Amino acid sequence: MARAPRSAPPRLAHRILGIDPGSRFTGYGIIDTDGHHSRRVASGCIRVDKAPWPDRLRLIFDEIEQLVLDHRPHELAVEQLIFARDPSAALKLGQARGAALCAALRGELSVHEYSPKSVKLAVVGTGGAQKSQVQHMVQILLSMDTPPGEDEADALAIALCHAHSMGIPGRKRMAASWRDWRP
Amino acid sequence: MARAPRSAPPRLAHRILGIDPGSRFTGYGIIDTDGHHSRRVASGCIRVDKAPWPDRLRLIFDEIEQLVLDHRPHELAVEQLIFARDPSAALKLGQARGAALCAALRGELSVHEYSPKSVKLAVVGTGGAQKSQVQHMVQILLSMDTPPGEDEADALAIALCHAHSMGIPGRKRMAASWRDWRP
Repeated sequence: MARAPRSAPPRLAHRILGIDPGSRFTGYGIIDTDGHHSRRVASGCIRVDKAPWPDRLRLIFDEIEQLVLDHRPHELAVEQLIFARDPSAALKLGQARGAALCAALRGELSVHEYSPKSVKLAVVGTGGAQKSQVQHMVQILLSMDTPPGEDEADALAIALCHAHSMGIPGRKRMAASWRDWRP
Repeated sequence: MARAPRSAPPRLAHRILGIDPGSRFTGYGIIDTDGHHSRRVASGCIRVDKAPWPDRLRLIFDEIEQLVLDHRPHELAVEQLIFARDPSAALKLGQARGAALCAALRGELSVHEYSPKSVKLAVVGTGGAQKSQVQHMVQILLSMDTPPGEDEADALAIALCHAHSMGIPGRKRMAASWRDWRP
């Protein structure tokens, strides 16, 4: 029986969407992965800083919804809520995150949440990595010609973190389950 | 030429959706109005406190989207962001608000924002009114058989506040314009 040659490209059957939502810039990254090898499918940054306020949420929602329709990812990975010190910034971030998540949830994706530290640890190897280190490692891991922008890199890093956590047998998944959410 | 009798019911040509979003309970109220007289079309409370976390945003989004599809309101009225003291609560409120607004914005509604004080002033006559006074006055103004629940009353009060601000010629609209929103 013929066997596939050892150098055959791995079958990257899993498609993950990573999102890094923000009230001005929302990074996104879609990768195909088998848990060990990953390939970039699409990534970028939704810039809404020039738009008047109510339009911002709609722009974020529409863009993420279109991404899900175009690329049909299976799972969504996002960073855990960062408990910002400033309540006003937290309200704005919360609204942007709500818009992004709603758009993704319409695509029936399962949702996985990782702490910012887990993401850096998975991609750079240290939980205290700098932004530039994340950009550098994401570029290498996904064989990108140029380094991704900051928000784009963060979103791809979140997707890679989820990919790594599913690809290592016996390893405890780093995803925090969505905690029961009673304010 | 025949004139309509003076007692003819007013033509309530304007349909307003008021929303009071929350991470556990989201009140909604739809009224028809001519700026002076108003009639309740639908109101209630979307309860998501029993749902696991990511489903909450989806439930809020789906319910508001369905309301907009069913009743086709022309305008959306919401309370201004309250700058909560607790950033963690602000993030949760922000996400719920983002979900509710996104659903409404898909219906191409124009968005109007009022301070909590303006809403109480418009409905009760004093900016420092108690919840029970708001419930009582909403019941009277909309000729409801029973007093509405707290969140339902708040949402109807926001819709009434918008109705009153558009119905008084020469009166400065109380709506704060959506401020340019640069965190």
